Amino acid sequence: MQGQRIVLASRPGPSGPGVENFHLEAFSPSPAKEGEVLLETLFLSLDPYMRARMYDGGNYKASVGIGEVMIGGTVSRVLESREASLAVGDIVESRHGWQTHATVPGSGLRKIDPDLAPISTALGVLGMPGQTGYGGMLRYGMPKPGETVLVSAASGGVGSVAAQVARIKGARVVGIAGGAAKCSWLTEELGLVAAVDHRAENFAENLAAVCPDGIDVYFDNVGGEIFADTIPLLNAGARIPICGTISVDRHQPSPLGRDRMYDLHATILVKQLTLNGFIFDNLLDMTHAFRRDMVQWIASGEVKYREDVVSGLDAAPSAFLGLFRGENFGKLIVRVAGV
Amino acid sequence: MQGQRIVLASRPGPSGPGVENFHLEAFSPSPAKEGEVLLETLFLSLDPYMRARMYDGGNYKASVGIGEVMIGGTVSRVLESREASLAVGDIVESRHGWQTHATVPGSGLRKIDPDLAPISTALGVLGMPGQTGYGGMLRYGMPKPGETVLVSAASGGVGSVAAQVARIKGARVVGIAGGAAKCSWLTEELGLVAAVDHRAENFAENLAAVCPDGIDVYFDNVGGEIFADTIPLLNAGARIPICGTISVDRHQPSPLGRDRMYDLHATILVKQLTLNGFIFDNLLDMTHAFRRDMVQWIASGEVKYREDVVSGLDAAPSAFLGLFRGENFGKLIVRVAGV
Repeated sequence: MQGQRIVLASRPGPSGPGVENFHLEAFSPSPAKEGEVLLETLFLSLDPYMRARMYDGGNYKASVGIGEVMIGGTVSRVLESREASLAVGDIVESRHGWQTHATVPGSGLRKIDPDLAPISTALGVLGMPGQTGYGGMLRYGMPKPGETVLVSAASGGVGSVAAQVARIKGARVVGIAGGAAKCSWLTEELGLVAAVDHRAENFAENLAAVCPDGIDVYFDNVGGEIFADTIPLLNAGARIPICGTISVDRHQPSPLGRDRMYDLHATILVKQLTLNGFIFDNLLDMTHAFRRDMVQWIASGEVKYREDVVSGLDAAPSAFLGLFRGENFGKLIVRVAGV
Repeated sequence: MQGQRIVLASRPGPSGPGVENFHLEAFSPSPAKEGEVLLETLFLSLDPYMRARMYDGGNYKASVGIGEVMIGGTVSRVLESREASLAVGDIVESRHGWQTHATVPGSGLRKIDPDLAPISTALGVLGMPGQTGYGGMLRYGMPKPGETVLVSAASGGVGSVAAQVARIKGARVVGIAGGAAKCSWLTEELGLVAAVDHRAENFAENLAAVCPDGIDVYFDNVGGEIFADTIPLLNAGARIPICGTISVDRHQPSPLGRDRMYDLHATILVKQLTLNGFIFDNLLDMTHAFRRDMVQWIASGEVKYREDVVSGLDAAPSAFLGLFRGENFGKLIVRVAGV
């Protein structure tokens, strides 16, 4: 059997990641040994956190080594099983990265029920991004009825869930997205009270106009200038859950100018803010509640989701790079098999 | 009767507050009307938060107006009373600012028991600064036995209490102060495991050397470069209670250079930090527990305190300006009457 995989060929240079940093190569998947399964990748998730792992130093977890397969969450079909709990044809959630096949220990793989929801949702609304948006909003945002909750990257995999959870909890939710199509989706499909296009020239004014009572919760996925623009609008006691910096490649030098670390620090005090950085791993204790609520909300139509599915493993690098230019509309997923 | 008071004569200029912004003037205190008391100021508290109130815009509360008496906490003696609950000679905690006398409503004044502790402590270890250090450390720092807790401005009114509360809770406490005398006091009198002089050239290296296991809690009073120097040492999941920016006058422009707002934001995510800005007002529900614990800890010798008392209302402006150069050693207080 012949497989394909994408490895990290080189570290990004001063202009950040590019297609030249990836290399597609053929390989021969190993047969399953005792306790293992051979998997065929059906869907691969592409997520912003992967950028930092391309650099030396990584982020909260180690870097991908040069020549190693790029990491990532996957939904796969069992081709061979030497693990009692899994049968050929089972669909599982795995984390074997940018490759068509993988031979991995069978223990620790989560079986996915294809009757519950489309299996690709295990990488989005019912998976890591969904749980990050759900858990982060509830645990750190703590939205109350009538409060103004702002969510950036609100049409993405994490933000769209965070925004809808806050809406369900009775908050007045405003979303930030890039371009008119995404903004329309936020108000018309997700039921947000307003959406603001961060590409518009007068973004800060537009944001202020739809937050007449200030901002009580800012769920931040993006950092950078959008983060800076929200600061004047934050109310005393506002909560700021931070789970992403998609607008900023933190392995590149910060811009020159006024050192706004000073201003941010003073504002944290003066406005008595709470900022919480968090990652999915901090929310694992909420897995049961997340799945219970989200399955029900999807079934009832209270939560909607959108996937942006590209075809073929070879399309992964350019689709991934497009994430940072906002080219995807919805959770970005690669259909690896059955293309 | 003739009194004296210090009013705000002008707003600070581009080099910050100076003696020229204050004006000492004579006035005639009004006699007490029904429900009022005439107070004689015994002690006046000088605190860093007053700087921001000298500017247009203030901080979390309104500015002092031009020509208005400078604000501040006071300990006073009742000279005349037309309020049933207060008698001539009673000692009360009040907030009538930089003046020798004040005629104020008697309701809302807290009587101080002179037998419990020296009455000046109502402005320090048993007052607003003490409660800020106690409540901020317990509520936001949440120190656990064996954790490394760092406290800046650790010899001051807030920091010295925060540091000792963390030590009592079993943490390994490191203090930051300016100069050898203050650092010795932190280790020899307050029982901290180490003290680091922020005036030393190799401050960042010295700090790293005494935090071999990183920092789990950074109780921050100062902001600026000391705050920046702690960031590389913070452990994943660290808590950063922020209740002051004494090293930075936020009404002056931030320095030019790399915009470290970007770095701070990314670090909050990568290290999964919690930053809490807070002020005394956020801790009012802890007043009973604070007084109960602190009176007991002072009596047992578990908490020590130090006051820096200057004499005479006319000494207030220069003593206040010295706060920002670290000239005080302990809680800064002005003895107004009985000089």
